[in-house]
Amino acid sequence: MNIRVLSFGVSTDGYGAGPNQGLENPLGVRGPELMEWFFPTRVWRRMQGQDGGETGVDNGMAERGFERIGAWILGRNMFGPVRGPWPDESWKGWWGDEPPYHVPTFVLTHHARQPLEMAGGTVFHFVTDGIESALAQAKKAAGDRDVRIGGGVATVRQYLQAGLIDELHLAIRPVLMGSGESLWAGIDMHALGYEVAEHIAGERAMHVILRKR
Amino acid sequence: MNIRVLSFGVSTDGYGAGPNQGLENPLGVRGPELMEWFFPTRVWRRMQGQDGGETGVDNGMAERGFERIGAWILGRNMFGPVRGPWPDESWKGWWGDEPPYHVPTFVLTHHARQPLEMAGGTVFHFVTDGIESALAQAKKAAGDRDVRIGGGVATVRQYLQAGLIDELHLAIRPVLMGSGESLWAGIDMHALGYEVAEHIAGERAMHVILRKR
Repeated sequence: MNIRVLSFGVSTDGYGAGPNQGLENPLGVRGPELMEWFFPTRVWRRMQGQDGGETGVDNGMAERGFERIGAWILGRNMFGPVRGPWPDESWKGWWGDEPPYHVPTFVLTHHARQPLEMAGGTVFHFVTDGIESALAQAKKAAGDRDVRIGGGVATVRQYLQAGLIDELHLAIRPVLMGSGESLWAGIDMHALGYEVAEHIAGERAMHVILRKR
Repeated sequence: MNIRVLSFGVSTDGYGAGPNQGLENPLGVRGPELMEWFFPTRVWRRMQGQDGGETGVDNGMAERGFERIGAWILGRNMFGPVRGPWPDESWKGWWGDEPPYHVPTFVLTHHARQPLEMAGGTVFHFVTDGIESALAQAKKAAGDRDVRIGGGVATVRQYLQAGLIDELHLAIRPVLMGSGESLWAGIDMHALGYEVAEHIAGERAMHVILRKR
């Protein structure tokens, strides 16, 4: 069982999201450029119920992102744009009736809410007592499979700084974001014990796998 | 005539030099990892008077770094570890009697010094009146060829922030530096008008070419 960040797009200048995130721009302005290695893949097209798509290196890396995952953890902003207490139960994520998780998915929030069962096996659990509690619950749910920390940037940074992530697969994109959420600012990955274990040139990104030394 | 940064190694987490630069570690501790795409190339081996070396994508990019260059600009720290006024004329750069520049090379410093003529055509000129003056002198010396800003990081950042660089070729290395000199911290490359014009997967780096939009 490993705690993993997978298929996480990062710009050449180190941003994992663009500026001005919100309902219109979940990943920030120009943020989708971080995932433009993913959108042409067969994996992505299947997620959209479409045929075709590329089957090269980038697609292979995207496939790895869904193997052996028994639970997900998402930050509140990755679940939705709602801030503060939940006004009602109407927001059910960015993904429609059938989210792409298909396993128990733990959402970090400061505001309690009943679990939400979606089509296709995804159940959103809302965790109000911190990242370590969310991880403990996710590990229990995942059994001998892995826990995937989905994001966003702030959530990945919190788990990194707590030393709780075993592996990160980053897709380093040849784009400049300029501003937004930096993955690296104020984080010393060497001091935290990470090194690049593997790197693979994809069609639209350099894939790097980071693990603890 | 263009003002260019070429063959500039940057870690995945955005550092252009490692921590604790000095006489023992000109590029900082672990800094040479940023150039490990360059050391196996035929270009590098020839610079060392050696035969052989790889002739793949990385070597091709290294070759591009020396084409049409009529003058170089170096920061004081890239020229040497001496700080403050020059105690004497004994420090002549990191490179021995025949530096790899072979053209007029302008060194930014706060402390005046006579020009220094080396074997093989390199003449070091010491410029005390700022980056714009150094650039004007370098452009004049380069004629219709290009000016290459050699580094280090602080020098590249100063020229970037002044909007004076036309093109940067960065070799993004699959290594984590953790600390050192960040190329990106506090610099908004999008607001400065840069975008990725080209990207090429090399054997040991992702090469990105940045130009103004």
